Amino acid sequence: MIVIDGLQYVNWNRELFQAAKDAGITAIHVTIAYWENTRETLANIGDWQRLFRQHGDLILHARSADDVLAAEQSGRVGIVFGFQNCSPIEDDLRYVQIFHELGVRIMQLSYNNQSLLATGCYESRDSGITRFGKEVIREMNRVGMVIDMSHSAERSTLEAMELSERPIAITHANPSFFHDALRNKSTTVLRALGESGGMLGLSLYPFHLKNGSDCTLDEFSAMAAETAEIIGIDNLGIGSDLCLNWDYQVLEWMRSGRWTAGADYGEGSADNKDWPRQPEWFASCKDFSNLAQGLKKAGFGDDDVRKVMGLNWLRFFGAAFETRQDT
Amino acid sequence: MIVIDGLQYVNWNRELFQAAKDAGITAIHVTIAYWENTRETLANIGDWQRLFRQHGDLILHARSADDVLAAEQSGRVGIVFGFQNCSPIEDDLRYVQIFHELGVRIMQLSYNNQSLLATGCYESRDSGITRFGKEVIREMNRVGMVIDMSHSAERSTLEAMELSERPIAITHANPSFFHDALRNKSTTVLRALGESGGMLGLSLYPFHLKNGSDCTLDEFSAMAAETAEIIGIDNLGIGSDLCLNWDYQVLEWMRSGRWTAGADYGEGSADNKDWPRQPEWFASCKDFSNLAQGLKKAGFGDDDVRKVMGLNWLRFFGAAFETRQDT
Repeated sequence: MIVIDGLQYVNWNRELFQAAKDAGITAIHVTIAYWENTRETLANIGDWQRLFRQHGDLILHARSADDVLAAEQSGRVGIVFGFQNCSPIEDDLRYVQIFHELGVRIMQLSYNNQSLLATGCYESRDSGITRFGKEVIREMNRVGMVIDMSHSAERSTLEAMELSERPIAITHANPSFFHDALRNKSTTVLRALGESGGMLGLSLYPFHLKNGSDCTLDEFSAMAAETAEIIGIDNLGIGSDLCLNWDYQVLEWMRSGRWTAGADYGEGSADNKDWPRQPEWFASCKDFSNLAQGLKKAGFGDDDVRKVMGLNWLRFFGAAFETRQDT
Repeated sequence: MIVIDGLQYVNWNRELFQAAKDAGITAIHVTIAYWENTRETLANIGDWQRLFRQHGDLILHARSADDVLAAEQSGRVGIVFGFQNCSPIEDDLRYVQIFHELGVRIMQLSYNNQSLLATGCYESRDSGITRFGKEVIREMNRVGMVIDMSHSAERSTLEAMELSERPIAITHANPSFFHDALRNKSTTVLRALGESGGMLGLSLYPFHLKNGSDCTLDEFSAMAAETAEIIGIDNLGIGSDLCLNWDYQVLEWMRSGRWTAGADYGEGSADNKDWPRQPEWFASCKDFSNLAQGLKKAGFGDDDVRKVMGLNWLRFFGAAFETRQDT
């Protein structure tokens, strides 16, 4: 079965690549940057280039849906590059194509805060897509880089869908009806996303789940079934937001970057600030098999399980990653 | 005839691309950076990506010898990216592959001054290849980026040839026996370059010519014949160093960068500081035909004229630009 994870953030090493391969994961959208500027992002990409050389028997750099299929055929894990923020392009429209040439295929227009392009979901007011944001959306459409609004606020997200000529993605989030968190998405957003041909990747990050770490597989799977009704079975995938092998300092970096001298606890709180405990049925790549079983038990047919587990992302990547030749 | 220019520095516009195409130039090694840091260099590459889109009927980005042949077959000019300094990689070894992925195929280890890698030809002492320089040479060898020592000092140049496992280039310089300038190369260097399979591109920049702007085509061609005896007919090409359409401020930038608050006159002088006047027989791309005629008159056979005018660079590019898969 083709299994594609719409987002992970892992401190990778050979053991973890091997675990992903052994679990039969076909491709993973990995995070190259949260707050990193242009130069820092290039260094992160440089580190990945070394990983591809050192572990070429386990992973390959997936720049296209064909590369994902090549990963499947060679028994390796395809790695899709993405940014969780627009900080890598700084203030320069030209860097969109630069990073596309370096293999970056997905970029969030904002992380949790206001960016130069859009408003993040933790801001108190949402001013929508900025002037620069409109230019970047047009350029991302041209070169074939997916607009990801996982961490963006609602107006910005709806405007991005309107402005983008190609379908967008919310690679890792859940519906607000399941758990009403700032990071989760309203039914309005989900409906518009489905109608525009976009993709939602369902998250397994405890702060996005009903009852957090104690959420059950049945609850998650029932939510998936209800979400499929809203967004359409062809527009649903997994974006687990699986975070592995990081210490607390990295969580601080994700939350506080360089923008505050204080401590921002993000989805946590001062007395619950550490990495959350994963549900026992989804703690590592091997637990994707639990998801498939849960979906089946919740009433998804075999074809639909395959769609949600990977075929939808594969089809979406096929249409989304290619540069338009006519512009 | 395949005509390849081993270096130009031109303020390009559509008219100048058209002129190069009309002159039958197959490929040109263009200058992307002198003193630019990483971010500034990315911006320059971004500008070229726009030029390729705007003038795709006249030019293409040549990343390989096959791309140069594709340029020939489609009647366009192949553009080979190169740096005249190592400033774009700053202090980070990883950026060699990053820039190779962005299509950069040639990099000087230094411009006129000491760099982090090697000593420039205007320094009073030459300490040779640095510790970082050795690492960068190994990495350039691996990814397929040509080491260019055009502006480097003699010990550094000889050491680069020794350390590099792949032949290097001096893309634009002349022999010192022709004109004894700091930028020209000793017979020792030329011999070592030829013996190691490297390439010399003969320069038409007046400061590199006997009698400067008044150098005659016969003098230049006789020098070419004598140089071929030293370096070998398969190791000689043209690297015109043609500079067009720039105002004086750009020459100041080339010479003084940000490293002096004063004025450095480079190969000129305080009373002769402006762009030099080109010899009348080599003032633009269309004058490559004069060079071919001059070589023939100086005794080069037809096959040898073709080698010097382009086939030697083509063969060299074919071996030099590919990433090694075994390392």
